[in-house]
Formats: sequence, C-alpha cells, structure tokens
Amino acid sequence: VTERRRKHWGWGWEDEQPDRAGLEAMVPLVQERLGFEVERVEEPIAIGDIDLAPPRLRPPEALAGFVSDERHARLSHAMGKAYRDVVRGFRGIYERTPDLVATPADEDDLVRMLEWCDQRHLAVIPYGGGTSVVGGVEPRVGRGYRGTVTIDLGRLDRVVEVDEPSMAARIQAGATGPGLETQLAERGLTLRHFPQSFEYSTLGGWIATRAGGHFATLHTHIDDLVESVRALTPAGVWESRRLPGSGAGPSPDRMLIGSEGILGLITEAWVRVRPRPVHKVSCVVEFDGFREGAEAVRALSQSGLNPANCRLLDPLEAETTGAGDGTAALLIIGFESAFGPVDGPMAQATECAEDHRGRAGPVRGHGAGGDGSSGGPGDAGDPAASWRSAFLQAPYLRDSLVALGVLSETFESAVTWDRFGEFHSIVMEAARRAVADVVDAPADGPGAPRVSCRFTHVYPDGPAPYFTVLAPARRGSEVEQWDEIKAAVSEALISAGGTITHHHAVGRDHRPWYDLQRPDRFAEALTAAKQAVDPAGLMNPGVLVDPA
Amino acid sequence: VTERRRKHWGWGWEDEQPDRAGLEAMVPLVQERLGFEVERVEEPIAIGDIDLAPPRLRPPEALAGFVSDERHARLSHAMGKAYRDVVRGFRGIYERTPDLVATPADEDDLVRMLEWCDQRHLAVIPYGGGTSVVGGVEPRVGRGYRGTVTIDLGRLDRVVEVDEPSMAARIQAGATGPGLETQLAERGLTLRHFPQSFEYSTLGGWIATRAGGHFATLHTHIDDLVESVRALTPAGVWESRRLPGSGAGPSPDRMLIGSEGILGLITEAWVRVRPRPVHKVSCVVEFDGFREGAEAVRALSQSGLNPANCRLLDPLEAETTGAGDGTAALLIIGFESAFGPVDGPMAQATECAEDHRGRAGPVRGHGAGGDGSSGGPGDAGDPAASWRSAFLQAPYLRDSLVALGVLSETFESAVTWDRFGEFHSIVMEAARRAVADVVDAPADGPGAPRVSCRFTHVYPDGPAPYFTVLAPARRGSEVEQWDEIKAAVSEALISAGGTITHHHAVGRDHRPWYDLQRPDRFAEALTAAKQAVDPAGLMNPGVLVDPA
Repeated sequence: VTERRRKHWGWGWEDEQPDRAGLEAMVPLVQERLGFEVERVEEPIAIGDIDLAPPRLRPPEALAGFVSDERHARLSHAMGKAYRDVVRGFRGIYERTPDLVATPADEDDLVRMLEWCDQRHLAVIPYGGGTSVVGGVEPRVGRGYRGTVTIDLGRLDRVVEVDEPSMAARIQAGATGPGLETQLAERGLTLRHFPQSFEYSTLGGWIATRAGGHFATLHTHIDDLVESVRALTPAGVWESRRLPGSGAGPSPDRMLIGSEGILGLITEAWVRVRPRPVHKVSCVVEFDGFREGAEAVRALSQSGLNPANCRLLDPLEAETTGAGDGTAALLIIGFESAFGPVDGPMAQATECAEDHRGRAGPVRGHGAGGDGSSGGPGDAGDPAASWRSAFLQAPYLRDSLVALGVLSETFESAVTWDRFGEFHSIVMEAARRAVADVVDAPADGPGAPRVSCRFTHVYPDGPAPYFTVLAPARRGSEVEQWDEIKAAVSEALISAGGTITHHHAVGRDHRPWYDLQRPDRFAEALTAAKQAVDPAGLMNPGVLVDPA
Repeated sequence: VTERRRKHWGWGWEDEQPDRAGLEAMVPLVQERLGFEVERVEEPIAIGDIDLAPPRLRPPEALAGFVSDERHARLSHAMGKAYRDVVRGFRGIYERTPDLVATPADEDDLVRMLEWCDQRHLAVIPYGGGTSVVGGVEPRVGRGYRGTVTIDLGRLDRVVEVDEPSMAARIQAGATGPGLETQLAERGLTLRHFPQSFEYSTLGGWIATRAGGHFATLHTHIDDLVESVRALTPAGVWESRRLPGSGAGPSPDRMLIGSEGILGLITEAWVRVRPRPVHKVSCVVEFDGFREGAEAVRALSQSGLNPANCRLLDPLEAETTGAGDGTAALLIIGFESAFGPVDGPMAQATECAEDHRGRAGPVRGHGAGGDGSSGGPGDAGDPAASWRSAFLQAPYLRDSLVALGVLSETFESAVTWDRFGEFHSIVMEAARRAVADVVDAPADGPGAPRVSCRFTHVYPDGPAPYFTVLAPARRGSEVEQWDEIKAAVSEALISAGGTITHHHAVGRDHRPWYDLQRPDRFAEALTAAKQAVDPAGLMNPGVLVDPA
C-alpha cells in the first residue's frame, strides 16, 4: 500500500491534480469565464527531475525515527502555497529546501529535536499545513546557520480533552480543520473556524498566523477563540493558564498569537467551541455597485446585529465566482444560532440593507445538516453555496490556472471606514496599473486582466477588503510578474492607510511593508522578547523581525 | 477662588467627605444594614499633621511650570484607592511619597519630563485618576533611584478628533469618564465604558490596566474598544496604525494594553465609540440560590445572545446593596441598542433563565434619557437602579466605613465553568476563615462578617466572580488585617484555578500571585521587551515584573 502523499508543488493530494485531459477540458471554461486565451497546457515538472542539493545534515541516530532527508519530504516542505510558490514548484525552481524534515509524534520528540537544533545551531521552521501564502514556511533564513530543519506538527492531531461545561477543548497544534471538526462533531460541537485553507491548515498554524475564519463579524480571527496556548520555546515551555478572561498584565496569549513561529512552536491550545448551529438563515442583497453595498455594510457593521456572514462581492468578483452575472454587487448576509431562531435579526439586517438601496432576495433557512457531517463550511442548497464552493475550491483551481497560463493573486487588508473610498480607488488602480505593466493584454474588454474586490470580514470601524487579480501570465516570467504586482499593490495598501495583512500573516514576503506599518518601538520590544526565549535565534529566522 | 481639590487620603473631592454629623448619622444605618456595632466615629488626620519627608529633588527651572513639590500634590499622589491605601491615608501613614508631581500640559512637556528623569535616573510613576486598588501608583520602586516623580496626565483630557464614519475617536489619555463622555455626547456618541471608578479614572489608566466596563458580555474590557494606542517610552514614541482589524504579527496594542506603565506613558488612543442607545430593556430574575443562578448565567453566556448586562448577585450581596431582601439571588439582564428594538433577545434570555428555575420579573424598557446627559452609567426608574447607584457610591461609602470602623475589601477573578463550583466554595471559605481569624466578631448571626459574591462579567467559558468582604475592623490594625485577608484569598483564587485579577490589574499588591499565574517564559519576554524600550528601568518599577 502506498501512502497518499501531498502534492510537492501545489495544493492538495498528488492524486487530485487534474491530468492533461482534465486541464484541456478547462481551456474553454477559462476562455468563457475569464476571457483569457489559453495558448497551451503545461505540465508540472516530475518530482524526480527536480534539481535538489543534498542535505547538509544527516538525521541523528536517536531521532531517525521521525526525521527524514527524503526527496519528497524536503521538496513538499520547501515552500508555502502563494501563487509565487506554486509556480516555482510547478517549474521545479526550489531555491531553498530544508535539509531535514521532522515529524515528531509528541512533545518529547519535539524537545529532543529542539535540543539537537540548538546544539548544531540549525534554523527551525515550524510547519502546520504548509498553506502559508507569505513565505512563512520557506527556509529563507539568512546566513549563520549550519542547516535548516522543518518541524511538521502534523502528527500532533488530536482533540485531547473536551470541557463541556465551559464549551472548550484542548487540541493539539497539528490538527487540521477537518481533523479537529470530525473529533469535535462526535460531541455535537464545532470550533467553526473555516479559513480558505481549512482542509489542510492546522490549529497551530491558525494561532501562529492569526488566521481569519468563518465569522464575518465579531469573532473574525482565531485570536477570539483561544482560551490558552502552550508553546515550546528554546528556553522551555510557555503555557498560559486557562481563563475565560483576565486583566493580569498584557495577555501572554496575545504575544504568541501572530508570532509566526519566531518565539517557539505552539504545541496545543485550549479553544472555545460551541454547539453546532441549528438555526441558520441567509439572504443575498443586490446593489448597483460596490460602494453602495459598502455603505450598507457600514451601517450593518455598526448596528450591533453582528451577522455570522456579511460578505460583499463587487460585480466582477460575483461574476468570476459564479455567484452573480456581473451586473450587480452582492451582499451575502447570514445569521446562525444553536440556541434559538435568528429571523428577528435577519429581518433587521435586510431592512438596514434595503434602507441603503439594496434589493434583498428571499431569506432562506438552512438545517444544521447543511453543514455536512464532516463539519466543513459548505452549505448545499444555499444561493450563496456557489460562492462558498468556489471559495474552498479556489486553491485547487489556482494550481490548474498555473498549468493554463493564468496569473492569479490575492491581496487582503483592513482599513477604517473614513479612508475606505480613497483606499479602494488607490489599491484598485495600483493593481490594474501593475498588472497592465507586466502582462500582454488589452486594458479593457475581452481578455483584459480582472481586478476585483470583496469584503471578507467587517468591523464597526472598517472593512477587510480582499482583492483578486487574474490575468494572462507571461510563461516563464510569472515570478517576476508576481513580484512586481505584489510590490505595487503592497505599497498602495500601506500608503493608503491599510494593513499589509488582515489574516494572511507577514511571513517573509510581507516584511518590507510590515516594517513600515508596525511601530518601531514594538519591533524593538518584540525582537527583545524573542531573544529572551530564543537566545540563539533559531526559530523561523527572517519572519516578522530581523535576527537580533 | 480656591481650586477644588481631591481628597488626599480617599475617594473624590475634599468637600464631599461627610462631616462628623454626617458620619454619626450613618451609625444606625451600618448597624441596621450590616449588623456591625460602631464603637466610635473617627476623623481623618488633618493634612497639615501628616509627617512628610522633604522631597529629595527640586523641580528644575525649565519644568517648574508643571512640576510641583507641594504637600497636597505629593500626598494625594502617594497612594491608590485600595482599602489599605485609604486606611493609611486616613491615619496619615504615608510610607512612600513621590518627590515631585508633574502635570504636563502636552506631549512636549512629557518628553522634556522623561528626558530629565532619564538624566537624573528617577523612577517615573504614570498616574491617571489615581484609582488603582493594587498599589499601581504607589512609589514603592525599590532601591537604585535618586528619586521618584509621579506624572499625572490629568491635563491631557481632550477628545481630539472624532471620525464619525468609522465611529472612532482620538482621545487623550488623561480624559476621565465623565470628561470624555461629555465631549462625545456633543456628537450623540458614547464610549460606554463604565468601570466603578468611572468618575475619576482615565482612558489611559483603563488601557494601562485593562479596565472592565459596562458590558457584561462580549466587550468586557477596554481592550475590545481600542483601535490604536500612542505611548511615549523612554526610547521614543510607540504608536500603532489605526486599523479595524489586522493579522500582521502579534498585536502591538495588546502589548501596551495591560502594561501598567512599565513600557511607557500612554498619551492617547483611538477608541471605538457608538451612538447612544435608544432601545433599552432590563429584567430582574430571582433564583433560590447563587449556584442555581450561575447555571442560568452559564446557559445565557453560551446562547450567543450577548446581553449588555448580565450580573448575578448572591442573596447577601443583593441585601447589602439594597437590591434584594437577602432571600434570593438576583440576576439583572439588560439589552440595549441604538439601532432597533431588543425585545426579541430579551424574551429569549428570560425564557432561558426561566428554563433554569429562575423567576423573571417584568421586562422594563428605558429611554435613552435614563443615561443622563453627562453620559454616566446611572438609570433612573430602573429596578436595578438601586444596585447601580450603590455600585458607583461604593467607593465614597468605603471612606465613611473607614471612619466608622468597618473593614471592606473586594477580590475579583475569572475561572472556567468546569471549575466554578469548587472555586466558589474554596474562595468563600478562605475569605470567611481569613476574616474570622483577624476580626473579633461572631461567626454567624447578627454582627458576623459578610462575605458575598456577584458576577461582574461573564464569558461562554466562565464567569468573572467578584467577592466582597465586610467586617468590623480592629482599629489601628486594619492594614495588617487587610494584608492577612488579601493573602489568604489571593492564595485561594490562584490555587483554585482563577486569575489574580479580572479587571483590577496587578500593580504591586498582586505581584506574588501574579508571578505564580503568568507563564515564566512570558515574564522573561516581557522583561526583555521592557528593557528594549526602557533601558534604564525608569517606568513604574516593581509593577508586573522585576527590574532586569
């Protein structure tokens, strides 16, 4: 029996990648839906043909049971899943590959591994699902290390304990979305944290990167679901007390949440779970344009209604994902509860949207079963289902788009409402101009690049806009194209008052703009904090801060 | 014209302290309500009779305009407002007094002040409203400083800017509750953060200490209302970008929030404001006992209804505050909205409470005017009003109790629901035993010490219990009595799985138990972070961490 393996270069499992016939069948769809001519279908380089330098290290005897220098392990852990990464993997451009990949079975293994890395002065890359789109797991660690070791926490995948009275669960960091939801579902519970990477990403990764989840308002980030965190730093264990709330000094958890592996390896966390919702309603509201929809969303965000879903798609985004025909912006509003009916707030929300020139469609109710027994975020029979399905399929599709010569990238941010109008104009314009500069395509009409925007999350003080760029790629120059677009849009995001990331994290790719955004004093404080618990600077070097 | 001055030893203004006749009139009330015999009414020491060492420093010429070594300034800034502090002030026991008190008018003054403190190696005590109950503003700074300077931010009291589209306001750190609410009310807005110290405490103090406010669920701490923070550290300005949400590294704000002055002086913050609520309903539900009420609150906390008010009083607490007759526990449920009616969620909440053996009284509605034009937290005509009034009057009353020989103290915590039952038993028992050990009073019946509990805030994973102790004091030994009770109860809170503070902060008084609670690695990280921005260790030494 051959074990099912993750694709070394892209999203998902090896056996899920469409074959040549499957890709050929997508050509007319791409032309029809996106308007791009597909010159030819390319195929990824075979794993055996990739030029891979031999590891600079050998697994030590004592750790050999869970440390590998095998080709597939090293290549599949070499990069994250940004478009930039997928293209490089597809073409076999592996600039940096970990020397070893460790898959510890428990914390004892982890401790031994860290000790060995400390003795040898090896850079350590913490690895959850490997779904980083910001270079967070790529061993670009700078000089000064005798090698790099990626520690994949995938075997720490259990829901260890459930405290039903407190609605909390202790879960190991390597548990994936479906993995932990399946275990929680046995008790009728759910974490209900559904990032786009849900299928592969892990609780530890979510906490390390402040992942954004299911709830469009209120509990938008995993931050809000964390009760306590346990991490292993080179200086020892960092574990906070389980508390529902506290005012005792700065929150220890909030220093680990978003630390992206620079302080230590998160090994487990207590998180707040909830009963599976049984009352669910949704409604799609049309608006003449995105700005009109945004005004309605602003009112909704300040209403205190706190809808579970409140996602606004601009007309192009709605068309691209198949949720609309491109003539109107769409707002998807959803309420849910495990406790009681949510028709009341839904009526208030649609009234609010209509007060802001929205045209509300029918309110639809959904049973709990719509969630699927695996606890995934899908919802069959929902008018918003096509959008949700596209949401989860997007990373798979992106791999195929690489093969078909379509460049795709996303940028996400958050900005206060007072700046939103100008912000949106500046970023859209910067994206359009950057794309026009690097691709050979008409500026308008059929075949033109597609730059669209949606809100993924929303707050009383501002939205989290998410931009998608689709364009014909210049084959072989995709990375350079991506780099230019990334730089131009990132520059625009920052200069227009946004954050370089609302929920994709900083990693290595966002560093130049993150460094403009965060307070200098905070960077000094964080660097010092890191040095206190990681004196040798082994933990994910290059991410967030420079080595001290 | 004599300027109105704060009382140097207790709560509020000098002219508010009841005179001897006023105190004599309280004697029968204390006997009737609390059951304690009052031997005699004492009077506070006159300010001129207090033994005060001359300052070790003289205000430098260049700063003389806003730096004082005057007796009232030094004495009134020498301590916070714990019972321990008030008793010491009452009796004239000033163990440590700042050498100078600075009242800068702006950030320029502040910068010059900090520079001078750095040159002279002086400890700096940041001071907002001076309402700390944990020794947070007392210059117990250890050896190694050539003097102590308290910096009172009270003159930085303006709402500087309001961003109405984003419902956010930039407010200076020294603005008090009424001060900022009055300024916001001009725009029909409110911050709606009402700690018990509301009348005197300041935005900067709330942020520095993670103050707990009006909302019993959801946005319980000031943390949740902060959009960005500006602080002045000895190493320079630390200011975060205004963002509605972000996932870019650990939150810079969350490192300042709760830092209790050890990183720098918070000078201003952008906070989320809201329209004043116009739809308000409340309901009082009776339960046979506190545990029964707690079960109902647990269900409510996990319902997703998120009531604005959800405060449970045990029978004794209800009686003490005049909200009940001592035969039943009372749950006060409130919903409010500026947007639309809240009868729906109130009906669901009372149904939930009744499902848990509660006896719900009538649901009462309140107009927006009930809030008072000053924006304060009172609500006339509310059945819960007597409790709320007692809540805000409590610190005034406490001063009188000192004069009447009644020991009073509170302890607050938070704990997960799974541990709550045992936690409550352990802490109540520890408090009763500690009080019995130090006071001469019968264990039961008339004249017995009163130990009661309420929930101030509540989360899906646990409540924030707040304990009140009232007992006859042993005149002249109150501090020793307090210290013994404090130690015994704090030990119980920590050993039973709670936090040493849910919203009173750590300061100097909670240090021994805080040090048991926080992760050691976090303490190392925080100490290093402090050293990075305060290399000379000037900022509020002794609070939260030891000098590096």
